[in-house]
Amino acid sequence: MLDKILFLERRFLNMRNHSKAICESLEREDFVVQPLPEISPPKWHLAHTTWFLEEIILNKFLINYKFYNQGFRKLFNSYYNSLGEHWIQSQRGNLSRPTVDEIMAYRESIENQTMHLLAKNRHNGELYKSLELAINHEEQHQELLLMDIKYILGSNPICPIYSNHTFENEPPKKDNWKYFTEGIYEIGENISDRFYFDNESPCHKFYVYPFGISDRLVTNGEYINFIKDGGYERPLLWLSKGHDWVKKNKIKAPLYWKGNQESGRSEFTLYGEMKLNLNLPVSHISYFEADAYARWSGMRLPTEQEFEISSDRSPTSDSLKAFHPKNTGTYNSQLWCWTQSHYSPYPGFKPYEGKISEYNGKFMCNQFVLRGGCVATPQGHYRKTYRNFYEPHQRWMFSGICLAKDYL
Amino acid sequence: MLDKILFLERRFLNMRNHSKAICESLEREDFVVQPLPEISPPKWHLAHTTWFLEEIILNKFLINYKFYNQGFRKLFNSYYNSLGEHWIQSQRGNLSRPTVDEIMAYRESIENQTMHLLAKNRHNGELYKSLELAINHEEQHQELLLMDIKYILGSNPICPIYSNHTFENEPPKKDNWKYFTEGIYEIGENISDRFYFDNESPCHKFYVYPFGISDRLVTNGEYINFIKDGGYERPLLWLSKGHDWVKKNKIKAPLYWKGNQESGRSEFTLYGEMKLNLNLPVSHISYFEADAYARWSGMRLPTEQEFEISSDRSPTSDSLKAFHPKNTGTYNSQLWCWTQSHYSPYPGFKPYEGKISEYNGKFMCNQFVLRGGCVATPQGHYRKTYRNFYEPHQRWMFSGICLAKDYL
Amino acid sequence: MLDKILFLERRFLNMRNHSKAICESLEREDFVVQPLPEISPPKWHLAHTTWFLEEIILNKFLINYKFYNQGFRKLFNSYYNSLGEHWIQSQRGNLSRPTVDEIMAYRESIENQTMHLLAKNRHNGELYKSLELAINHEEQHQELLLMDIKYILGSNPICPIYSNHTFENEPPKKDNWKYFTEGIYEIGENISDRFYFDNESPCHKFYVYPFGISDRLVTNGEYINFIKDGGYERPLLWLSKGHDWVKKNKIKAPLYWKGNQESGRSEFTLYGEMKLNLNLPVSHISYFEADAYARWSGMRLPTEQEFEISSDRSPTSDSLKAFHPKNTGTYNSQLWCWTQSHYSPYPGFKPYEGKISEYNGKFMCNQFVLRGGCVATPQGHYRKTYRNFYEPHQRWMFSGICLAKDYL
Amino acid sequence: MLDKILFLERRFLNMRNHSKAICESLEREDFVVQPLPEISPPKWHLAHTTWFLEEIILNKFLINYKFYNQGFRKLFNSYYNSLGEHWIQSQRGNLSRPTVDEIMAYRESIENQTMHLLAKNRHNGELYKSLELAINHEEQHQELLLMDIKYILGSNPICPIYSNHTFENEPPKKDNWKYFTEGIYEIGENISDRFYFDNESPCHKFYVYPFGISDRLVTNGEYINFIKDGGYERPLLWLSKGHDWVKKNKIKAPLYWKGNQESGRSEFTLYGEMKLNLNLPVSHISYFEADAYARWSGMRLPTEQEFEISSDRSPTSDSLKAFHPKNTGTYNSQLWCWTQSHYSPYPGFKPYEGKISEYNGKFMCNQFVLRGGCVATPQGHYRKTYRNFYEPHQRWMFSGICLAKDYL
Repeated sequence: MLDKILFLERRFLNMRNHSKAICESLEREDFVVQPLPEISPPKWHLAHTTWFLEEIILNKFLINYKFYNQGFRKLFNSYYNSLGEHWIQSQRGNLSRPTVDEIMAYRESIENQTMHLLAKNRHNGELYKSLELAINHEEQHQELLLMDIKYILGSNPICPIYSNHTFENEPPKKDNWKYFTEGIYEIGENISDRFYFDNESPCHKFYVYPFGISDRLVTNGEYINFIKDGGYERPLLWLSKGHDWVKKNKIKAPLYWKGNQESGRSEFTLYGEMKLNLNLPVSHISYFEADAYARWSGMRLPTEQEFEISSDRSPTSDSLKAFHPKNTGTYNSQLWCWTQSHYSPYPGFKPYEGKISEYNGKFMCNQFVLRGGCVATPQGHYRKTYRNFYEPHQRWMFSGICLAKDYL
Repeated sequence: MLDKILFLERRFLNMRNHSKAICESLEREDFVVQPLPEISPPKWHLAHTTWFLEEIILNKFLINYKFYNQGFRKLFNSYYNSLGEHWIQSQRGNLSRPTVDEIMAYRESIENQTMHLLAKNRHNGELYKSLELAINHEEQHQELLLMDIKYILGSNPICPIYSNHTFENEPPKKDNWKYFTEGIYEIGENISDRFYFDNESPCHKFYVYPFGISDRLVTNGEYINFIKDGGYERPLLWLSKGHDWVKKNKIKAPLYWKGNQESGRSEFTLYGEMKLNLNLPVSHISYFEADAYARWSGMRLPTEQEFEISSDRSPTSDSLKAFHPKNTGTYNSQLWCWTQSHYSPYPGFKPYEGKISEYNGKFMCNQFVLRGGCVATPQGHYRKTYRNFYEPHQRWMFSGICLAKDYL
Repeated sequence: MLDKILFLERRFLNMRNHSKAICESLEREDFVVQPLPEISPPKWHLAHTTWFLEEIILNKFLINYKFYNQGFRKLFNSYYNSLGEHWIQSQRGNLSRPTVDEIMAYRESIENQTMHLLAKNRHNGELYKSLELAINHEEQHQELLLMDIKYILGSNPICPIYSNHTFENEPPKKDNWKYFTEGIYEIGENISDRFYFDNESPCHKFYVYPFGISDRLVTNGEYINFIKDGGYERPLLWLSKGHDWVKKNKIKAPLYWKGNQESGRSEFTLYGEMKLNLNLPVSHISYFEADAYARWSGMRLPTEQEFEISSDRSPTSDSLKAFHPKNTGTYNSQLWCWTQSHYSPYPGFKPYEGKISEYNGKFMCNQFVLRGGCVATPQGHYRKTYRNFYEPHQRWMFSGICLAKDYL
Repeated sequence: MLDKILFLERRFLNMRNHSKAICESLEREDFVVQPLPEISPPKWHLAHTTWFLEEIILNKFLINYKFYNQGFRKLFNSYYNSLGEHWIQSQRGNLSRPTVDEIMAYRESIENQTMHLLAKNRHNGELYKSLELAINHEEQHQELLLMDIKYILGSNPICPIYSNHTFENEPPKKDNWKYFTEGIYEIGENISDRFYFDNESPCHKFYVYPFGISDRLVTNGEYINFIKDGGYERPLLWLSKGHDWVKKNKIKAPLYWKGNQESGRSEFTLYGEMKLNLNLPVSHISYFEADAYARWSGMRLPTEQEFEISSDRSPTSDSLKAFHPKNTGTYNSQLWCWTQSHYSPYPGFKPYEGKISEYNGKFMCNQFVLRGGCVATPQGHYRKTYRNFYEPHQRWMFSGICLAKDYL
């Protein structure tokens, strides 16, 4: 048990350092901007994850805890109504203060207090449960940081480079389908000593019909065929709301594609702008696009249960992380895959109790589940029961397409 | 077989007359207005259901069919992209022409041509299948007509009366719960010689956990307790999008309620304005409100599968229809009940083929399923597998709350 | 004096009948719709002008006057805050009731009461002053009725015809310029026994520089040259807000023009759709377009003072009124001419006192003055000091272009 | 002449340094944000004024001038269509790059090239005319910088302090009116060897009626009386568009006021938050508020001509500049005063020729003129013929109220 505790403390410190490491190559100015309402300025993420520690650890386990700065309680609350007022999300980018330096000092102070508290309470199971949640919470924001940084740099006409490393590609991968037979399967998680979010539980039986699922992601080259075939202009391929979105926003290609058939296509990545590689997986697409592509190809998207069943084990993370998806074997660690499942509660779902009851349940409306994980997901954060979710028009996350089909 | 055919022809004529009967008490001016984008002017419904006959029957089964009026093809197409352009939905109320008289003449002409065609083709199974769909389509619009008329009259400060009949209430009904055990149930429909919409099929197995479901609707009196308890002001009771909707639209009560605690509450109905009867079912509420009420009461909404399982037979329709819901035994014929199920395809779902492929499937995004039926649903249109669906903020349909709970 | 009184009573009755005559060829459905927020349903105009009589005559000069219908006081108040609440302008088209018949009965009742009151008070100068205002007020609405009817019919793809008379054109007119010398001119009106609106007074001195003004309107043919020269695509020709408006609304031609260079241009008129006549004046254009055209042509729009000075006498009205502008001598009775003058108070301006203080002054912000009069202006409503005003993007009124230039 | 040239070169360098000095107390993060579409990030101002030098000086007077960075030509063009594309104004705050350091390097390089060019061309009158314009252009942006910095800091709940100096107030000032007689006055400027903007010319005769004008600004204390008297809730005091703005935006006080009657009022200033001083001039109010206040007080706003006539000399600037207005003698150097004049061209107005033709004329639509100058206006930028202009709802500039009245 003490081993697990010491491991968790180490993981906590490493995780905290990793958040800073993600921002290392940024200019001070990059920390501030918010080009879309759903993007957050990087400095906000650094502060919000620290606020979370204050609210669910320090203020819970320290008697008469005095908050670092009363103003921060409102500024860095994301949306928790039970924890008081919060600053309007879409206006995070209007705030130049506190500065990055002030936020770094805030981080350090709260980290130190947290480590001090942990050292003194190594037998408090409740505290370590909260710590585990805080770690997982900040890991989610590490992925958001990379998503948001990519959008911030990518929407600048100057196209600044985030990573100076070389992106090494791998040879194209052949199509391979896995098939599953009809029957009752167990979905979700509730083994008590492992960490999982409330929305993944309880583990429950689900009746599944025969299906096949591809073991690789749809490629840029395949997606170009869809475009060339007039995919974006054919309303019968789309959900009604999907084609409205296409027309209103004049969508003609995935989010970070530049150029066109004539001028030559390229793609903005965290390594800068690259010529579009036809063998790489198509990324940064909306549910609407994934669904239309699947219909065009004569297939369909998997349900979230099918995806979970087909992921026979938790993804490994042996390989070094890159900042752009490859066309590689463990496809579910390259891009999040859209499923056709709306994000709904499992039978018998109970939200967390107390302050964090708002963590997941209140978003179970008009979103779709993505499964798998992506290059931006931190090491060790993967889980085959993990349910990610976004609105069907969103595409700034590292999302892709995995096809499925009925099998009779 | 001929019996069935003759019955269908009679049903067709009765149904067509019923559409006109619904509009009998309207003034000419009532046929034209569109107070909300999702409301259609009554004259539009009368024309659109006639356009549908032209497109899926006359133009399909008559060689060289000449359309009644080329302009009508665009004006009265609702959204079918495969059938050409359509007029913008939100601007139906901008069109004073064609007049009601012109539309009535249009109806008569198309009806006559249809009857003529039917009489000559009594062995054409395809034709009769299309006729069945056309009947069910117009029946759906009969319910929409009553919903839209109620909104048109109800949003006028003069509060005009639609029906001069007396609304007779019944004594309050006691709460009674039905319980169901765990296991695999069959959901949906695919018996070939019965009519059903594509979205109700295929019939499939579904694993259900033990649950209880109330056999009556939540009443106005119960809903007032929710309001008095600060229900609308407590964000923790709501979905995130739900409370955003409450705040943005300053929602404080169901759609047609007027007055408040102090001044005395009343309710606009198709019988005119009535003092709020605490024993009647609460009606015209959004999914957001139904979900928040259920959470407040410590229960939950049923899933659509639970609702279907608990509806042991198709609702009868012996009693005369009223225009306002009662607190009565066959609750599922009084108000549509919100379920917690997003509107998604069943496993193995195949949309209709051909022109009508857009009937249902393309709306399977960000809507919730309602089950049961309501006082505005035409006789014979009920079916226990029927899936109605609306967006979670909508409430101009006759919607209500039926509670469910986990049962261990 | 009695002569003048009897004349005014006759004018009142004729004017009231003329409002009904304008609507004679309408279908009942045409009275109800409101395709744009600034358009009013014809039945609203008929009721509002009657409400005005109640508020400024009956309720003022009758002791204990009982209003015809309390609900109408709110429904048919346009914007007078001093006269209580008013229904939201943009939602006039949502109201099917009261019906046209009910409004006609309302008109008749108030007319009778007014005539009765007048007959008994032939020496009450105040009453006759109010009557004069009421007549002029309803005359303004007669022009609005024709503008709104044109828009209602013109935005219907069926393009219904308002007038079955033949539109007879006249031969093209040569350009002719009038020149005026520098000096002080008198602008505006305040001769006590003539009717004028408060915004036309006081008469005041204004220093004017030498200018020339054309005595005819810019023609469709001339305007097409502007279009062919890329007029709409050249931002340097436009006010900044003007070109924003062009781009946002994809404006490419005057309001009622249909077709284009290739397909052949036509124009919707109250006589139905007509092939575009190059000799007729260009009509239904915004200030932005008039200003850009003038800049393109190397000229400018006149100021309102220049226009008034150049109109040496009140326009006569010998000729029968048509419903479409001709290229004729008394150009200022064919189309309202945009001036470059913002609508501002004259030096020493005093608004009306009492209830009608809101008649004009509160609109003196961000509008431009039009001068002249148009084919839709009722006989006898013309006045050379008359100041009409609209926002610079509006163009559903009968507006045109008269050019001016500096003259040294 | 050489004296004038050397003076201008010195003024140019001082002016450039002053722009940097204004930003000295900012944090790096403050340079980036854009809390409203009409606010620009400080780093944008620093770059745009440098871009202006490249476009109108270096690229004009150097043969084969090579731009510093082609991307900057689009990013830092404000709106000049004749100078190519420009980045959308409302999205300036989405750009983290180029960084502040990169922009400072840009400034330095262009400054050096400009000085080098000037030194070699001391007899080129055209060049010096352009330099004079560039200086005046950047001075305008210096005032904008202070306005925007104030808004950026003031909309942050932390309320950061810009200046650590002490704000020293002066004793209240008595009301004093100046009166002017009827007649023709000369308005505007066209003396060839003095700098003025195109919109101030030509000098022209204008007929003025007798008027009085106050020689001090309306105070916070006086404005509170307006509020206490229900000023914001009485529509008859307001322009129609003005009260719509009040209701839509829930305006209850000037822009930077905080607190209320009960809690005690304070005001955000560039010196931080201060208790509201009743003797200081009311500042940061819209035209709508100024107009309503004037009507409430029984007075009116002056016309721009009246204001110019009453400013008998150019304002001096002996006193040290502060960052908040005082109640002091030379009122017209404390706050810009709203006039009742729409911003329109003077008779005979000719825009600049060439690239800078878009400087002023294209904004002459739906704005109102402000006269006087304010504490944020740079030394030497004042001129009695100066025409500042804003939209009637805007109030982030240093604006105040000066009253006038008719005088008979």
